[in-house]
Amino acid sequence: MNVTLGVGMLGYAFMGKAHSRAFHDVLLLSPPLVPELVSISGRNRERVEEARARYGWAEAVLDWREQVVDPRVALFDNGGPNNLHAEPTIEAARNGKHVFCEKPLGLDAAEAHGMWRAAEDAGVVHMCGFNYRFVPAIRRARELVDSGALGEIVHFRARYLQSWGWEAPTDIWRFDRAQAGTGALVDLARYLCGEVAAVSATVRTYVEGHEVDDAFVATVEFENGAIGTLESSRLALGRVNQNTFELNGSQGSIAFDLERFDELRVSDGGAYRSERVTGDWWPPGHGLGWGDTFTLEVQLLLEAIAREGSVAPHGATFEDGYRVAEVCDAVLRSAESQKKEMIEYR
Amino acid sequence: MNVTLGVGMLGYAFMGKAHSRAFHDVLLLSPPLVPELVSISGRNRERVEEARARYGWAEAVLDWREQVVDPRVALFDNGGPNNLHAEPTIEAARNGKHVFCEKPLGLDAAEAHGMWRAAEDAGVVHMCGFNYRFVPAIRRARELVDSGALGEIVHFRARYLQSWGWEAPTDIWRFDRAQAGTGALVDLARYLCGEVAAVSATVRTYVEGHEVDDAFVATVEFENGAIGTLESSRLALGRVNQNTFELNGSQGSIAFDLERFDELRVSDGGAYRSERVTGDWWPPGHGLGWGDTFTLEVQLLLEAIAREGSVAPHGATFEDGYRVAEVCDAVLRSAESQKKEMIEYR
Amino acid sequence: MNVTLGVGMLGYAFMGKAHSRAFHDVLLLSPPLVPELVSISGRNRERVEEARARYGWAEAVLDWREQVVDPRVALFDNGGPNNLHAEPTIEAARNGKHVFCEKPLGLDAAEAHGMWRAAEDAGVVHMCGFNYRFVPAIRRARELVDSGALGEIVHFRARYLQSWGWEAPTDIWRFDRAQAGTGALVDLARYLCGEVAAVSATVRTYVEGHEVDDAFVATVEFENGAIGTLESSRLALGRVNQNTFELNGSQGSIAFDLERFDELRVSDGGAYRSERVTGDWWPPGHGLGWGDTFTLEVQLLLEAIAREGSVAPHGATFEDGYRVAEVCDAVLRSAESQKKEMIEYR
Amino acid sequence: MNVTLGVGMLGYAFMGKAHSRAFHDVLLLSPPLVPELVSISGRNRERVEEARARYGWAEAVLDWREQVVDPRVALFDNGGPNNLHAEPTIEAARNGKHVFCEKPLGLDAAEAHGMWRAAEDAGVVHMCGFNYRFVPAIRRARELVDSGALGEIVHFRARYLQSWGWEAPTDIWRFDRAQAGTGALVDLARYLCGEVAAVSATVRTYVEGHEVDDAFVATVEFENGAIGTLESSRLALGRVNQNTFELNGSQGSIAFDLERFDELRVSDGGAYRSERVTGDWWPPGHGLGWGDTFTLEVQLLLEAIAREGSVAPHGATFEDGYRVAEVCDAVLRSAESQKKEMIEYR
Repeated sequence: MNVTLGVGMLGYAFMGKAHSRAFHDVLLLSPPLVPELVSISGRNRERVEEARARYGWAEAVLDWREQVVDPRVALFDNGGPNNLHAEPTIEAARNGKHVFCEKPLGLDAAEAHGMWRAAEDAGVVHMCGFNYRFVPAIRRARELVDSGALGEIVHFRARYLQSWGWEAPTDIWRFDRAQAGTGALVDLARYLCGEVAAVSATVRTYVEGHEVDDAFVATVEFENGAIGTLESSRLALGRVNQNTFELNGSQGSIAFDLERFDELRVSDGGAYRSERVTGDWWPPGHGLGWGDTFTLEVQLLLEAIAREGSVAPHGATFEDGYRVAEVCDAVLRSAESQKKEMIEYR
Repeated sequence: MNVTLGVGMLGYAFMGKAHSRAFHDVLLLSPPLVPELVSISGRNRERVEEARARYGWAEAVLDWREQVVDPRVALFDNGGPNNLHAEPTIEAARNGKHVFCEKPLGLDAAEAHGMWRAAEDAGVVHMCGFNYRFVPAIRRARELVDSGALGEIVHFRARYLQSWGWEAPTDIWRFDRAQAGTGALVDLARYLCGEVAAVSATVRTYVEGHEVDDAFVATVEFENGAIGTLESSRLALGRVNQNTFELNGSQGSIAFDLERFDELRVSDGGAYRSERVTGDWWPPGHGLGWGDTFTLEVQLLLEAIAREGSVAPHGATFEDGYRVAEVCDAVLRSAESQKKEMIEYR
Repeated sequence: MNVTLGVGMLGYAFMGKAHSRAFHDVLLLSPPLVPELVSISGRNRERVEEARARYGWAEAVLDWREQVVDPRVALFDNGGPNNLHAEPTIEAARNGKHVFCEKPLGLDAAEAHGMWRAAEDAGVVHMCGFNYRFVPAIRRARELVDSGALGEIVHFRARYLQSWGWEAPTDIWRFDRAQAGTGALVDLARYLCGEVAAVSATVRTYVEGHEVDDAFVATVEFENGAIGTLESSRLALGRVNQNTFELNGSQGSIAFDLERFDELRVSDGGAYRSERVTGDWWPPGHGLGWGDTFTLEVQLLLEAIAREGSVAPHGATFEDGYRVAEVCDAVLRSAESQKKEMIEYR
Repeated sequence: MNVTLGVGMLGYAFMGKAHSRAFHDVLLLSPPLVPELVSISGRNRERVEEARARYGWAEAVLDWREQVVDPRVALFDNGGPNNLHAEPTIEAARNGKHVFCEKPLGLDAAEAHGMWRAAEDAGVVHMCGFNYRFVPAIRRARELVDSGALGEIVHFRARYLQSWGWEAPTDIWRFDRAQAGTGALVDLARYLCGEVAAVSATVRTYVEGHEVDDAFVATVEFENGAIGTLESSRLALGRVNQNTFELNGSQGSIAFDLERFDELRVSDGGAYRSERVTGDWWPPGHGLGWGDTFTLEVQLLLEAIAREGSVAPHGATFEDGYRVAEVCDAVLRSAESQKKEMIEYR
């Protein structure tokens, strides 16, 4: 338990906060490696120094290039803006650092593919931050699928609805977040239902001046024969952050709504029952919060590094990040072509 | 109040029961015309006689051709199987009878178009039985849309989920019901969000021996610029008869779930509130049932006949029945062509 | 099926409408006796005549004394104001009429006891209108209790919350309704959990000028050892007509909310599942409404009359009406004495 | 921000874990004092050492008497078993340590009173661990009450339902937890509705061998004139950890269910709306978990210590702990006397 792992992090905003907290809290879960917070980097000297002090990092640096060659750093954690995901992460991997990168992995499938190949070639452990997989109810959903209790899967439908699109000025942070949200939806579909084979999609920008699409709707076909719908919008008044899915199989069904974080609805063919799924940190029924998903994610990452293995299947690898990007690209292609697009992996 | 209206009905099964009850119960709503139940028809002598006695019809006849020329009959109500919707209804209209036909109007758009034109040419009142429009919460939803309270509509999503597909042998009744369900979903979309401009759809038959599709998923684009998803399945375990929709506008949103018949969720931009919408038959909060939607439907029909007008906009005319059929046809075309299909009206 | 039963009814307001509709609609359920609507009575000539015409009664009469001796009347249905429940009902029974009386049976336990004894002495069938017993989900709840599936019952909690108390002027109708509501809550407790042994209660009138208590809270002990709470208020803003209960046993639990009329939540020890309970009038999942409970109630009454038996256990007899009144009286005694009051039956 | 505050903690079990995590996580909230984890104490040498290592405390000690005189310790945090709440806490206060004690404050009102007086006499900051006050939705509820938006409060009803009572062997931990749960319910009532004036209660032990009551039901009267019900049970199958309340005022109502941690239902007189209340740690709609309530609690405590003030009104002081104990004692007295008991403070 006293073996430490040096961590260097890029990004001090939202994800900087979330990841820093996870590296602290994971200690309560008895991880095989103890994170040592070596350095945090960012371009704004004042803000990165403030983050360093508040979040407990030893050093603040202005250039990630220092981190990726720092011998004290064994794990490079990239929580920076989307357009800074690829280069620093690839450099870190090439320098033999394990890599942990926030979603979306790259700006498109090509970039994500490059990141995946770089990490594989370097032989390092890689993880893409699809933290929703660590919501206890979603993990339980996957276990039910894997157990065969639901039988053959026939339908999957999911939507991610928010309402900030009406009010917000366009800024980088929201732009990033919108892209991450779409990928998260696709990753959930893959995590629970397997690979996507084809999509037909329509995307729309309703609010003038928006540079990222406000909404998309899509039908999907999975390799296993299931069909479904995916939908994402930032214009759904009444919804702050609703992320809901339902999966139907030949033996049973499951349904989840992020607004009821601790609850998985399960049908074994008859009426849905509402199971409380709260993990085992606290006594039964005392739920976790959204921030705790990062702690569980980091715990799995530390375990994978300790045994020099993969974070799969419950953690998302860079391969998962790449495959999600292919589906996201196909959504845009279909919206353009007005026909069904097949997903093809390079 | 003592002016009567002679009614002849085709069909003695499920819809025979529902419509017969409505013709009785409507009396409590003080209709302008009092229905006189002249005759009920069907091919099985024993069953039609039993229905006659139980449901209070004066005569049982074996051939609808008698009814459509019977001078005592002013309204012909067609609740028979889908393949008997067109011919008897058209004959009745040509003989000057007002016509009330269950959904779907015809077996396809061409047939439905013929029915509509026949009724229009005959100058009779016509109504297609999209009784969901008479759920008080759905009527209230439409009123909110019409009032402008929701602003510009951007999204509509609806699904109709049942589970009997896994267990049932294929029979005519279920075949009919499946078709009616899909049309009902489309009619709701049109009733609340306006005409459908385009669809991209996938349909699937999972259970061997099924002659009608088990499920479809579709993205839709509306003439007003809104986008959305429609989905219907008979294979969704855990759902007995869920019919749910959500509509988002620039000023507010509404959401409904048939399993909560008396409730409309309404957002005026902030959090959803759960309004009880129970009509005004009983004291506030004492809800109606599904069967009562037929009574409200019949009341509107009697009012239209009394003033020689149309059942629009809250009742569905044969034009509505036809337009729904065009969308349903486009769903099938798109599933075949694997591309987006535009809706064109003849 | 052609044997008729002459009915005379007192009352043309809310309950006149509800009962009249039930006597019509019951025909669709193939009752053993066909109700013949002989006469409806009330003191306001114009309104009773209007009710007669609208609800399909043969005659309107101004004095119930005519009805209780009318040889054509075999069933006397008392849906009049509470202070007219006892005398007409007793007179009808003494004249050999079967009697059906709305809740509360009498104005207090003494009066209710007299009505019960009179009906018993006359040997007629008697029913008190606790129609909530005929909500399909509540009937199912009782069946689960009877089956032993829930084990030994340990807790019962129920509340009846409305909000009209803040806004309403005090009138007879609401006064009646408030009293009926409290009794209905008590009857549900008895129907599901058995006889009440003791109560401790507090009652309050908050709104000036109110002659009936606005709210009460009580703890109850049942003869079977269970404990629980009962609560009723007309001052609960946000609630239109919420009637909710939960019952816990050693093997399982059930929960119900009238605002989700078609749903019974059932735990067999684990998580609650939401069962759709919609009766069998319509296809699965198509629910009944509040008005339909009266139809089911009348059907059971007609069956009891046809076989010269009792409406128990699913219908409420006058004995039930009396026992409820004893509990209601004990609630008031306890509020006065500020101590626990035992229920004693005379 | 660099001023530290030495902390000594008693207890290494459930509360040891929860509090330790809070002292770490609070750093992300920029507290005015930085907790320095001086020592953790407990009687089991092996377990306290393991807790020390895992939770990041500098020293493990076997006797709390060392901690209460340790000059490095400025705050004594008592998360030990209930029967060890009074003596160590009083000793710490007498030695000038600020004191933080888990609920229930003492084993009865007399003991709790002594603790309160000791802390007051010593002039130290004192806090009783009613952490539910730090659920964001409950804090928001209190703010709505304080704002006057709900008008005059007329009703409060709350229940705390769990199901482990059927299965569990009687052990100290569960005994402690049961007592803490009842007090938490009473504290919530006081926090939202003001002081309790009187209670009528029934308590029951159903399961043989249980030394603590399995369940209680009570009616309560508040000093402000409101009435209500309180109920707690460990025998409610289907409920893992349900803590729910509803408060009705003359202008509006609020309702909460711990199983929907992030949601406060609010009525301003009309239909309830479901507000997402997720605090401001993360982006809107990303909720906190139960463990995070401790972090918010510790943050408030550190602020109070920094300004040498009280944790009131949002934190619970020892006076709150004492007043809760008086109500809990009255519940037991009433169950014995079978009459209403008034609360009198010494």
